[in-house]
Amino acid sequence: MPEKLKKSIRDVPNFPKKGILFKDITTLCKDKVSFQRMVDLLGHRYVGKKIDLIVGIEARGFVVGAALAYKLGAGVVLVRKPGKLPHKTHKESYKLEYGTDTVEIHKDSIKKGQRVIIADDLLATGGTAGAVVKLVKKTGAKIVECAFIVELDDLNGRKKLKNEKVFSLLHY
Amino acid sequence: MPEKLKKSIRDVPNFPKKGILFKDITTLCKDKVSFQRMVDLLGHRYVGKKIDLIVGIEARGFVVGAALAYKLGAGVVLVRKPGKLPHKTHKESYKLEYGTDTVEIHKDSIKKGQRVIIADDLLATGGTAGAVVKLVKKTGAKIVECAFIVELDDLNGRKKLKNEKVFSLLHY
Repeated sequence: MPEKLKKSIRDVPNFPKKGILFKDITTLCKDKVSFQRMVDLLGHRYVGKKIDLIVGIEARGFVVGAALAYKLGAGVVLVRKPGKLPHKTHKESYKLEYGTDTVEIHKDSIKKGQRVIIADDLLATGGTAGAVVKLVKKTGAKIVECAFIVELDDLNGRKKLKNEKVFSLLHY
Repeated sequence: MPEKLKKSIRDVPNFPKKGILFKDITTLCKDKVSFQRMVDLLGHRYVGKKIDLIVGIEARGFVVGAALAYKLGAGVVLVRKPGKLPHKTHKESYKLEYGTDTVEIHKDSIKKGQRVIIADDLLATGGTAGAVVKLVKKTGAKIVECAFIVELDDLNGRKKLKNEKVFSLLHY
């Protein structure tokens, strides 16, 4: 029952700015029963799906991605903010409310045809996730699904991932 | 045989700046056999040690910490850079070569007496890890050990963790 996990998620008003009700998953992560259940519920979905790699999005996506990768016997690939990865990277920029942001992935991190899950904690407007999908496609990966712990349905982030399968454990 | 993992770690010269030979663990993480072995080797060390929580240090420590937490049936707590955690935090500042840096942890992330491992990918000068030890102690946690994938022995980071047990899977 994924819905039970909602009890472990904390609402923090006005973070990161006024008017935003932030879904804080750190309270889920520190609770061992909830953390294990979260990883198990996500992981069971992909057992037998021959997943090679989980792509984790900096930074909370590293938590989801690494635990999921361990559970599935897969490896983990990091999508990072600019300048953090030491070797040659693909880059993808996307619009924010004000200005732009960029995500990077090592060019040699995924081999053509490898089956990957893109993982993050939260799907909100889908700006970051949409850019990560484009980024990951540059490697020739086969994106099996984009997986999130929490999806904020009203923000319609799925629209930015319309050619991909999207799964979220919890919906608000 | 942890030493075998060294084959999966890439040396990147002059990153993040000239004269530094960077130990890139992303090549280890993307290799599923190496990644699983890394987590298993670290994890076996703590089986039966009643670990409640793994404290992962932003950002690569989230990868190590989350996978290790899942393996051990523990929860995971995030130590983050300033302003990233949404709720009330303890803070600890430490000196860098130029200026200072700060790490934060949620005040309510660890209960007094909980048994924790502090996890990161790399122990270099020990500046960050030393600050994280002080930070974690503010919660009243029992630090069982500080665990790293890679330790750069010449930089003597252990000296900054002298009151703690320190374990590194690989030494250079």
